[in-house]
Amino acid sequence: MQQKNVLITGGAGFLGSHLCEKILETGGEVAVLDSMDSGRMSNLQHIQERIHIFSGDMADEHLVQTAGKGRNIVVHLAIPIAVRQQKFTLHHLETATKGFFNILNLCLKEKALLIHISSVAVYGNPKYTPVDEEHPLEPETMYGAVKLAEEYYCRTLHKTSGLKYVILRVSDIYGPRNTPLSTPILFLRNAMENRPLTVFGQGTQGRTYTYVSDFVEAVLLAMENETAQGCTMNISSREFVSMLELAETVNLVMGGTCQVIHDPTVPADLRKLDIEIKKARSILGFAPKVGLAEGLRKTYAWMKNNLAHYSMR
Amino acid sequence: MQQKNVLITGGAGFLGSHLCEKILETGGEVAVLDSMDSGRMSNLQHIQERIHIFSGDMADEHLVQTAGKGRNIVVHLAIPIAVRQQKFTLHHLETATKGFFNILNLCLKEKALLIHISSVAVYGNPKYTPVDEEHPLEPETMYGAVKLAEEYYCRTLHKTSGLKYVILRVSDIYGPRNTPLSTPILFLRNAMENRPLTVFGQGTQGRTYTYVSDFVEAVLLAMENETAQGCTMNISSREFVSMLELAETVNLVMGGTCQVIHDPTVPADLRKLDIEIKKARSILGFAPKVGLAEGLRKTYAWMKNNLAHYSMR
Repeated sequence: MQQKNVLITGGAGFLGSHLCEKILETGGEVAVLDSMDSGRMSNLQHIQERIHIFSGDMADEHLVQTAGKGRNIVVHLAIPIAVRQQKFTLHHLETATKGFFNILNLCLKEKALLIHISSVAVYGNPKYTPVDEEHPLEPETMYGAVKLAEEYYCRTLHKTSGLKYVILRVSDIYGPRNTPLSTPILFLRNAMENRPLTVFGQGTQGRTYTYVSDFVEAVLLAMENETAQGCTMNISSREFVSMLELAETVNLVMGGTCQVIHDPTVPADLRKLDIEIKKARSILGFAPKVGLAEGLRKTYAWMKNNLAHYSMR
Repeated sequence: MQQKNVLITGGAGFLGSHLCEKILETGGEVAVLDSMDSGRMSNLQHIQERIHIFSGDMADEHLVQTAGKGRNIVVHLAIPIAVRQQKFTLHHLETATKGFFNILNLCLKEKALLIHISSVAVYGNPKYTPVDEEHPLEPETMYGAVKLAEEYYCRTLHKTSGLKYVILRVSDIYGPRNTPLSTPILFLRNAMENRPLTVFGQGTQGRTYTYVSDFVEAVLLAMENETAQGCTMNISSREFVSMLELAETVNLVMGGTCQVIHDPTVPADLRKLDIEIKKARSILGFAPKVGLAEGLRKTYAWMKNNLAHYSMR
């Protein structure tokens, strides 16, 4: 296989920064394009001499062409934080769409492989579990709808113009440098400050939380495995964790002194988002390695030494 | 039901102008928003004193808000002609997306019902026929992908923000004022000028061609029938017509003097796009009335008196 020369959009964010490290480790070249709206230079500080950083918006066609010139792989992680947080306006969706079309054009021009990071949000409320790739696509959020629209643009441009792509539908990922809004991080922070861990209702709702190094592994496999091209695959751990189990595991990792309380006044989100990954196992040989307790321990270790990460803004 | 006060995007086009006439007939109020890129003032000349015409781009948010103020229904027909003809650039897709977001915002603000005209192009190559609404969604063209993305934005905004919508997936529609690129029009024009009618290969590929008044009927039913809200339905005739049958019927309508020739050098498009409409029958009471020979006769009668329509540009 050719030497990797990768552009990562949103490369200064949580996922992007881990991906940069790994690509460097494997001897690849890395460029980051990030608006720095939610990405942070501090996430890349330890590797900044070894990567090319382009600060600016994906909606800037010239910048995208410049940052992407000569790359053979583009990993598309960027999405306006407002869209992810459901606080989008028309303008955010426009920017996301325009930026995405710039990325598509770049990949066609450079004949680069697009690794498009989609989300299990494209499925909406599970009609059955575990949710495989054949599950109906009925997003409940505009974030999910935008990701789904982007998937269709990839697949169609593959047919009409030969776009090379892999689509990875990722589940809830956690780890060092994660944003404070993720539930594992929220629980860890509360436990670090000896506040109780609050679960809604019975706490039976849950997720297949995925440790960041397993996600990174999947992206690397997708880059290196030609049979993955043109495929759409779920990427997740296979460890379904209820909210109550998450709270109890955080407690265990932290020494078991926190109170776990049930808040009956908040209506429980009863979804069990249990994600199937047989397809990624079969096509990529993907096998998630880091279990919940281990992942939380690693995340906690990082958080202890990086308290500033959560007070910076 | 409330008095209809309808904004039609792309209202100066083929479909839009027929829809304007019908809404006026039923006592409704009509405004047209059209960029006039492919729409024509001549299509509306006979009713221009009775409608409000706004010339300009959907991507102009202020114009959309102005044209749509106080309307209780929006019919979204507009799509850049370049996207329909597969000659799109990034800029066309951006304009289409931005315009569509403006329409969505308008409908939310005015609490207007959005009748979104989608296309059977969202299905891609038929995996089975007749193609019903449960058929897999795998568009082969960016036109189909854009329409599908728009569908998902409608459905998701319904869930997140209460958008009222009906989605109609329309099949090949023909009739007076049609563009010259439609196959029935192409055949009629050739027959009028005594040129042979060329079918590709055996001519077994085909469509369920739909006469424009049946399409208009479906849109009116969708406006008037509250149970249609939140539904996605195919709209088509149920008369599957092969390319060869189309040529022969055109010949019959025109007096039977034209030669029908087979062109073996052009690879045959073997698709049989036979569209199921049980859902629209059941929800809307939709029943297409105009058969192919009658529709072609009406179209021919109009073309004879409007030769300028096809030489104007």
